Amino acid sequence: MDSDLKYIALFQDCDSTFLNALEAQKQRQNHKKGKVLFIYGDTAERFYFIKSGWVKLFRETLDGAQAVIDILPAGNFIGDTAIFENGVYPYSAEVAESAEIISLPLSNLKKEIENNNKLALNMLKAVAGYRRQLDKEIEHRSIQNASQRIGCFLLRLADQSKKNNVIIHLPYDKALVASRLGMQPETFSRALAKLREKTGICIKGATIEMDNLDQLVSYSCSACTSKFPCEDLQAAE
Amino acid sequence: MDSDLKYIALFQDCDSTFLNALEAQKQRQNHKKGKVLFIYGDTAERFYFIKSGWVKLFRETLDGAQAVIDILPAGNFIGDTAIFENGVYPYSAEVAESAEIISLPLSNLKKEIENNNKLALNMLKAVAGYRRQLDKEIEHRSIQNASQRIGCFLLRLADQSKKNNVIIHLPYDKALVASRLGMQPETFSRALAKLREKTGICIKGATIEMDNLDQLVSYSCSACTSKFPCEDLQAAE
Repeated sequence: MDSDLKYIALFQDCDSTFLNALEAQKQRQNHKKGKVLFIYGDTAERFYFIKSGWVKLFRETLDGAQAVIDILPAGNFIGDTAIFENGVYPYSAEVAESAEIISLPLSNLKKEIENNNKLALNMLKAVAGYRRQLDKEIEHRSIQNASQRIGCFLLRLADQSKKNNVIIHLPYDKALVASRLGMQPETFSRALAKLREKTGICIKGATIEMDNLDQLVSYSCSACTSKFPCEDLQAAE
Repeated sequence: MDSDLKYIALFQDCDSTFLNALEAQKQRQNHKKGKVLFIYGDTAERFYFIKSGWVKLFRETLDGAQAVIDILPAGNFIGDTAIFENGVYPYSAEVAESAEIISLPLSNLKKEIENNNKLALNMLKAVAGYRRQLDKEIEHRSIQNASQRIGCFLLRLADQSKKNNVIIHLPYDKALVASRLGMQPETFSRALAKLREKTGICIKGATIEMDNLDQLVSYSCSACTSKFPCEDLQAAE
């Protein structure tokens, strides 16, 4: 049996015995926006790979206030670290934009990392990389103002090598972009208006156009400890 | 040779050959506040264990603005994840309060995790746990106001099982607490005054006193997705 799982970076050093066992229990489904994949605190039996689309990770208070931890694009695993959280999911996950999701049994992963050191190292590298993304988010929340953070969010969506006539499409709706950035909707609107004023970007619904990235880079990257173009995006290519 | 390194949780499954090699190159030093241990982007040759005291992790922009990523207490490793960052430190580290620091060669760690799966799994568990702390920080920055965040910071320093006459000592100065929480000094002062008003805590320099934790819990934990007492602090015991 030939498995497309072997093309996923995390599994690159896994043998066919493990991959075939995983393949036999694999579920592949297309989900619409709003589909809840799992709930914070539930016993974790499966982990998920985002094949396409976007998935929101969040937690809620007893009063129903929602904290968005991240909104992840294709290529990411979710729920896998439940292995290190007493077997329960450390966040809730909901499809943010139509997504193709591969679901896999967590027990196989748990057993395999205990025996396959290369898999453990690949997972360690992935978790360390994600930790770095989170600490970058904390950095930005500390030193960038709201408009600079929206500018940074747009820059990370853009083709950073493009010199002229830049067009950026928001991957999900503006209310979600606001919560991804930890802003109230009214703060987001004000900050977006200020960003347009400062950088001359042109906003048409979910499409943002500009002559080039220079103004956005000058405005947002001055309050960042990394240089433009973003190193981690380069590394991911 | 008997090594105290074997009492460190990360090394619990390491054999004496590895521990003795590490021990032979170990440096143990007492540092005062302000001592820089390493700089973001420098080639990483050693990693560090905080035996006592506090260490600030930070990065700086070209303009000199400083983003504090975390301030870590005793029991934490720093610089170890440079292994997964092309061998360079992913942040700068500076002693925040007098600290005893053990410095160890990174090359030994790198070689050992490639051969010792139990060490790789222990490190994976530690990094996943730290990732969870960072996502909790992002949650709090999204849904707690500034005063609630200071309250949460104090609660995490307190003995959460103590019923009456609670006394909390700030572990480092107020300016550092402000930057740890990602606040400007004036925002911090206003938020602290509001917290005192809302919860009746009594602030005497670096000491905070209150009859019990109820008011603080009621005020801060209503804007958190975890229950009091904090689960992760329980787990650490």
